Amino acid sequence: MYTRSLAVISLLMISSFNAGAQSPNLAQRLGYPADTKLLIIHADDLAVAHAQDMASFEALNRGAVSSASIMVPCPWLTEVADYAKAHPDADLGLHLTLTSEWKTYRWGPVAPREQVPSLLDPQGYLYADAGEATRHIKPEEAEREVRAQVETALKLGIRPTHLDSHMATLFTKPAMVAVLVNVAHEYHLPFLMMKIPGTPPEMYAALKPTDVILDHVVMVAPPVKADEWLSHYTQILKNLSPGVSELIVHLAYDDAEMQAVTVDHPDYGSAWRQRDFNVVTSPEFRRALEENHIRLVTWRELGKLLPKP
Amino acid sequence: MYTRSLAVISLLMISSFNAGAQSPNLAQRLGYPADTKLLIIHADDLAVAHAQDMASFEALNRGAVSSASIMVPCPWLTEVADYAKAHPDADLGLHLTLTSEWKTYRWGPVAPREQVPSLLDPQGYLYADAGEATRHIKPEEAEREVRAQVETALKLGIRPTHLDSHMATLFTKPAMVAVLVNVAHEYHLPFLMMKIPGTPPEMYAALKPTDVILDHVVMVAPPVKADEWLSHYTQILKNLSPGVSELIVHLAYDDAEMQAVTVDHPDYGSAWRQRDFNVVTSPEFRRALEENHIRLVTWRELGKLLPKP
Repeated sequence: MYTRSLAVISLLMISSFNAGAQSPNLAQRLGYPADTKLLIIHADDLAVAHAQDMASFEALNRGAVSSASIMVPCPWLTEVADYAKAHPDADLGLHLTLTSEWKTYRWGPVAPREQVPSLLDPQGYLYADAGEATRHIKPEEAEREVRAQVETALKLGIRPTHLDSHMATLFTKPAMVAVLVNVAHEYHLPFLMMKIPGTPPEMYAALKPTDVILDHVVMVAPPVKADEWLSHYTQILKNLSPGVSELIVHLAYDDAEMQAVTVDHPDYGSAWRQRDFNVVTSPEFRRALEENHIRLVTWRELGKLLPKP
Repeated sequence: MYTRSLAVISLLMISSFNAGAQSPNLAQRLGYPADTKLLIIHADDLAVAHAQDMASFEALNRGAVSSASIMVPCPWLTEVADYAKAHPDADLGLHLTLTSEWKTYRWGPVAPREQVPSLLDPQGYLYADAGEATRHIKPEEAEREVRAQVETALKLGIRPTHLDSHMATLFTKPAMVAVLVNVAHEYHLPFLMMKIPGTPPEMYAALKPTDVILDHVVMVAPPVKADEWLSHYTQILKNLSPGVSELIVHLAYDDAEMQAVTVDHPDYGSAWRQRDFNVVTSPEFRRALEENHIRLVTWRELGKLLPKP
């Protein structure tokens, strides 16, 4: 996911989203001392392309990332469903998708188009731009589409461990946050929540006290330079605060398919995603995790903290 | 397109589908002597994958193929629409698609799912198998989907020159043939018609005397061996009869994406499509066209023979 606001946040490298932390804090509730540094390394955008799936599966298989999430409306969904069924322990959530951001490779909604007209651009695809999507989308139609995405995943045999939001469209206004939160509650799933400091409290009105809220979320954003990729990531790990954080990465192989998917868009493009893959699978990154006493956790573990249905 | 019946036909290398040829014949109607050998070299399956698009565009740009057709429900449709708009003279038709045949890469219909339930397998995709599709599909729902595919293409700025049928599902029974023919008539487009010798005449009841019917259709099918690819094709050209024929090819680059699309299916798979590309773009194939006095023609030229709307 990526919006301008997220990019700004990410430039700060690590941002506290949850200043009023729970007591006992999340680390304690997971069985660790209060000051443990716990990290979900999370691969976004599974199913968007074969190159994304292959790189993400490889990183999951190696334990280089601890979690990932799936874009249900995208073309390679059944490839991911096959992986999910073959790897029932893999920590796979749904990357709820209300945008279709690439230039010549587009997708539409999962719900019938006539039931979600406010989600559609003039050509019948999801909006390319997150801001434009947010301006047009009626929250009740977003909820219909989000529900259809969850149901489609379940029908294909995917058992999601969590929900989050592609390009942060579900973090943009109270009614959209409520869509994410309400659907997550209904399916008894934990969810990523961007609690941005200074945001009016009505933004989070749908949350329940029992919801699991991460302490920090961080993602590399422009203008990090290609040759500073590894050092940027190791710096993130060095600065990681105690608590439960998520580091969002985008993993793909920089090949002909991925170059075509991300054509004319170097930010979060094909080479970018290859750099992310190279870093998270590198011995240097692994060493930085060890040296900074960071333990990887999963959304499945966080889900166990929710009240039983 | 490919079904068992087509494979059998293709083993004969060249098959006459239109024994009772029109007089004046098609060659004459196009302004050539009656015994001219005219050939549409036709690339199928555009939009199925980026590797298919790139190889097919390259062959179109070089004049190695004279025509191609597009699978509207497939993920790379907008890439093909961009090409079509940038190359208004390219001879691009619609490869009407009622099946989704690959193992881990599936697509659904363009029409709303609840309007075409008989087209859907239990997971909500188009049927993988052409025979199963034919058994389940209600012709009125096929027509709804076919119309939706034409309208989607038009909306994206594609101006199709012709219609044909992916995996031959619209050539399988009278009511399905009628779908293809009726929609083609409505949009004033020529269409590929497989007139298989010995077929009962009711199969072709929807045809009008003014319809343009090719004299021959040929396609390479299993079990041609990889090292005999070029010689098989040059043999086809050597044996080509006078009249208007279509040679159907499937062009793609044998890369990671295409290998994944066609996984576990060497027939018409990734390497198969690379061999087709290599042959049609080879100097040997070009020379065989010249030596056998074969002229390439397009569906656009055939469309000009239809009565004016």
